[in-house]
Amino acid sequence: MGETIRVGVLGARGRMGTEICRAVGDAPDLELVAEVNRGDALTALTHAGVQVVVDVTHPGAALDHVRFALDHGIAAVVGTSGFDAARLDTVRGWLAERPGHVLVAPNFGVGAVLAMQFARQAARFFDSVEVIELHHAGKVDAPSGTAVRTAALLGQARREAGLGAPPDATTQELPGARGADVDGIRVHAVRLPGLVAHQEVVLGTDGEILTIRHDSMNRSSFMPGVLLAVRNVREREGLTVGLEPLLGLGD
Amino acid sequence: MGETIRVGVLGARGRMGTEICRAVGDAPDLELVAEVNRGDALTALTHAGVQVVVDVTHPGAALDHVRFALDHGIAAVVGTSGFDAARLDTVRGWLAERPGHVLVAPNFGVGAVLAMQFARQAARFFDSVEVIELHHAGKVDAPSGTAVRTAALLGQARREAGLGAPPDATTQELPGARGADVDGIRVHAVRLPGLVAHQEVVLGTDGEILTIRHDSMNRSSFMPGVLLAVRNVREREGLTVGLEPLLGLGD
Amino acid sequence: MGETIRVGVLGARGRMGTEICRAVGDAPDLELVAEVNRGDALTALTHAGVQVVVDVTHPGAALDHVRFALDHGIAAVVGTSGFDAARLDTVRGWLAERPGHVLVAPNFGVGAVLAMQFARQAARFFDSVEVIELHHAGKVDAPSGTAVRTAALLGQARREAGLGAPPDATTQELPGARGADVDGIRVHAVRLPGLVAHQEVVLGTDGEILTIRHDSMNRSSFMPGVLLAVRNVREREGLTVGLEPLLGLGD
Amino acid sequence: MGETIRVGVLGARGRMGTEICRAVGDAPDLELVAEVNRGDALTALTHAGVQVVVDVTHPGAALDHVRFALDHGIAAVVGTSGFDAARLDTVRGWLAERPGHVLVAPNFGVGAVLAMQFARQAARFFDSVEVIELHHAGKVDAPSGTAVRTAALLGQARREAGLGAPPDATTQELPGARGADVDGIRVHAVRLPGLVAHQEVVLGTDGEILTIRHDSMNRSSFMPGVLLAVRNVREREGLTVGLEPLLGLGD
Repeated sequence: MGETIRVGVLGARGRMGTEICRAVGDAPDLELVAEVNRGDALTALTHAGVQVVVDVTHPGAALDHVRFALDHGIAAVVGTSGFDAARLDTVRGWLAERPGHVLVAPNFGVGAVLAMQFARQAARFFDSVEVIELHHAGKVDAPSGTAVRTAALLGQARREAGLGAPPDATTQELPGARGADVDGIRVHAVRLPGLVAHQEVVLGTDGEILTIRHDSMNRSSFMPGVLLAVRNVREREGLTVGLEPLLGLGD
Repeated sequence: MGETIRVGVLGARGRMGTEICRAVGDAPDLELVAEVNRGDALTALTHAGVQVVVDVTHPGAALDHVRFALDHGIAAVVGTSGFDAARLDTVRGWLAERPGHVLVAPNFGVGAVLAMQFARQAARFFDSVEVIELHHAGKVDAPSGTAVRTAALLGQARREAGLGAPPDATTQELPGARGADVDGIRVHAVRLPGLVAHQEVVLGTDGEILTIRHDSMNRSSFMPGVLLAVRNVREREGLTVGLEPLLGLGD
Repeated sequence: MGETIRVGVLGARGRMGTEICRAVGDAPDLELVAEVNRGDALTALTHAGVQVVVDVTHPGAALDHVRFALDHGIAAVVGTSGFDAARLDTVRGWLAERPGHVLVAPNFGVGAVLAMQFARQAARFFDSVEVIELHHAGKVDAPSGTAVRTAALLGQARREAGLGAPPDATTQELPGARGADVDGIRVHAVRLPGLVAHQEVVLGTDGEILTIRHDSMNRSSFMPGVLLAVRNVREREGLTVGLEPLLGLGD
Repeated sequence: MGETIRVGVLGARGRMGTEICRAVGDAPDLELVAEVNRGDALTALTHAGVQVVVDVTHPGAALDHVRFALDHGIAAVVGTSGFDAARLDTVRGWLAERPGHVLVAPNFGVGAVLAMQFARQAARFFDSVEVIELHHAGKVDAPSGTAVRTAALLGQARREAGLGAPPDATTQELPGARGADVDGIRVHAVRLPGLVAHQEVVLGTDGEILTIRHDSMNRSSFMPGVLLAVRNVREREGLTVGLEPLLGLGD
């Protein structure tokens, strides 16, 4: 077995951070050498000899953290949600001038990412597709961010394949019955106590249906994706967006 | 084995009528003695000694057919969709003055009726419930009539149990994402080629989910319900609405 | 609002007991007045004026606890699994000689009990039925106790309706492919990390499928059933077995 | 739009053949120029100027048909089930000595093939996986051929990823409850009237589940795959096995 990777966590005391520290601590090939929280100096990372830092703070702070990591030869895995296109461009600019390894992922759920990519790959072979996402009743946004991203990928795949609008003969509709329209794709959001986070993509052609469903029961489902990123970020030069390139999926 | 029941079918050449004639013909305890179509005289029923007539014509004609049946001591099973409250009241008026047996059912799918009733019975034990119906892309109305009836039953059951509005923390919604509101219940309509007619009622409480799903693949699924009605209509005095009383379900 | 019910819990420090104490404490119409653990004297119940005691200890102890409750005019709710037919007979014997209220339930999951009863009620209307249960990979028995009970109920319902063996044309089978045979009903047990406790009963007739699925995510799903029992046990004279009579279901 | 492809069908009067003739006839870019049945001379193909022939006869005849096609510069699409490894080797031998285009597919259901490939790609990211296939009660083999192939692909993917046997704590089992063991993967076969042909691959890791389900309602679901093969067979030199290479999926 090779050497272990020295890992630091920024935002170590948050809910995701706590889980990540535990998962890194449990992995035989990783070593947790720095837990950094709000108010702590980033130099804790360099003093501890961190090779890969995982950032689960917030978008405003994350950009500075990435800069610090690049300046000190540390690879960065960013799981902060809301790291937008402008911030990605800033990071790209930095990486144009120097070597470095940064991976930014909006979703570390390997299953969720696989589900989304399989749906996208299948889209062009089916006449139509809809998305049903189901979450606990305490969720404030509908549809979920994952469902919106999924629908956008499906819409794009259909356009690239030259498929027109999905067939729909509806002429009498109670408002909302057919769901929200995201990029031409219908998205339905179910909210119920007892649910956690679930999504179904249902694809149909005369005579057959393909359903790709993902159920996420708790935060621990993100850990395999975080560890995958930590283990592989230094293999990829520059900026990597999303877990997809690490999963070895087709185009 | 007892005597067979002599059965006539009105609308015998239509799609449902054809199936019914075949199903009656195949049943050892039933005898198909009259197939009546548009333009044929109703006296074909009396000449053939029909004991139970099944009407699958259209709402306008069906009322006259029921009257004829009552006048001639024939029990009537009406499967014509759109036999509305006013027509039911007319039949009730006739039956107040004379004995007779009439069964009117908006849905002869035994499974569909069971699913609806189970959902209604379960509703008061769960914090919330939503309906997802899924049909082929050629359907013109959304939600389906069955989904609207189901939601109305669920809403009523919740009110009778003193349950308030289902919990829903949604504050940001793309229009339509949360479905249609039918009697306080959210109903989602999915339309895809490859689907036939499907419905899911999903009930949730913290920690558990109960799902009742019905899949109807083709018209043959209605035959058991039609035969059940034919075999039992004469046991029930007056007007019976729906298959439910024949299914021996609880309150 | 009426007076509160004074509740005691036997086995209060166990996993189920802890949940029950919390649930009773949170219910405005119930008052938790005694938490009794191994080694504590049962007189804690009488001193605290307990009206309903919930026993989640073990079958051996539970019988003595029921006796004590009956001797002191306390109603008993027994959730101890493994309270077998012989013990039930003993309790019946005691109750033949004196008034008292005892409810013994093998499963306090309201959703699980509803699912089982709905499946039983539907069984006679379908040509065939199979059970699929899905649990986490740490479960030692396959199929689950609930699946075995469900299959027994389905087998009995089919026999009572005069239905023969379910149709099955299988002539070439890899051993085990068609599941276990429980009372003539095929039962399939799936084991996967990420699952919790789930069961599907799938009923089929030519042209239609009815699926009744229950998902239990955690122990909190049993609390509504426990509270239902506590609130209603004193309304029913003698011994009540199972939650079913409290759920107002049909025959 | 380019020229149309001239298509011939061998076994044109069979159930699959009839559907294929209709689908080819309906496709604007294809032209049905020869329908050949048992007893007809194969020279009907050359006389009609067939460019691509679709063979849905039987394995014994299909080999001769492929030879004839190769001898006359006709591309061949073979959908005959049971075209085994020995026959494939024979075709490979012929193609080593001359140019030609042959595509042999055990399954023309695009959705079924996608489902199988997605499951295979996902397998290495999950701790465990099981297969549930559900078919009508008239099916003679259990599990289905597709389920066996799927399990073999899953088992291979797990071995290549260095994953051991799926976790399973079962110590008490009713015979058959845990399904059949195919290449280390548990496979469950459900048989019910009302079902057609369905398959679910369920993958699990602590905290998340990924389900890939395919429902095939009727034979028309195979037509898109047949047409895909007809349109693309001449683009690929030599022998192609399975639709996969035409679907642009990753490794």
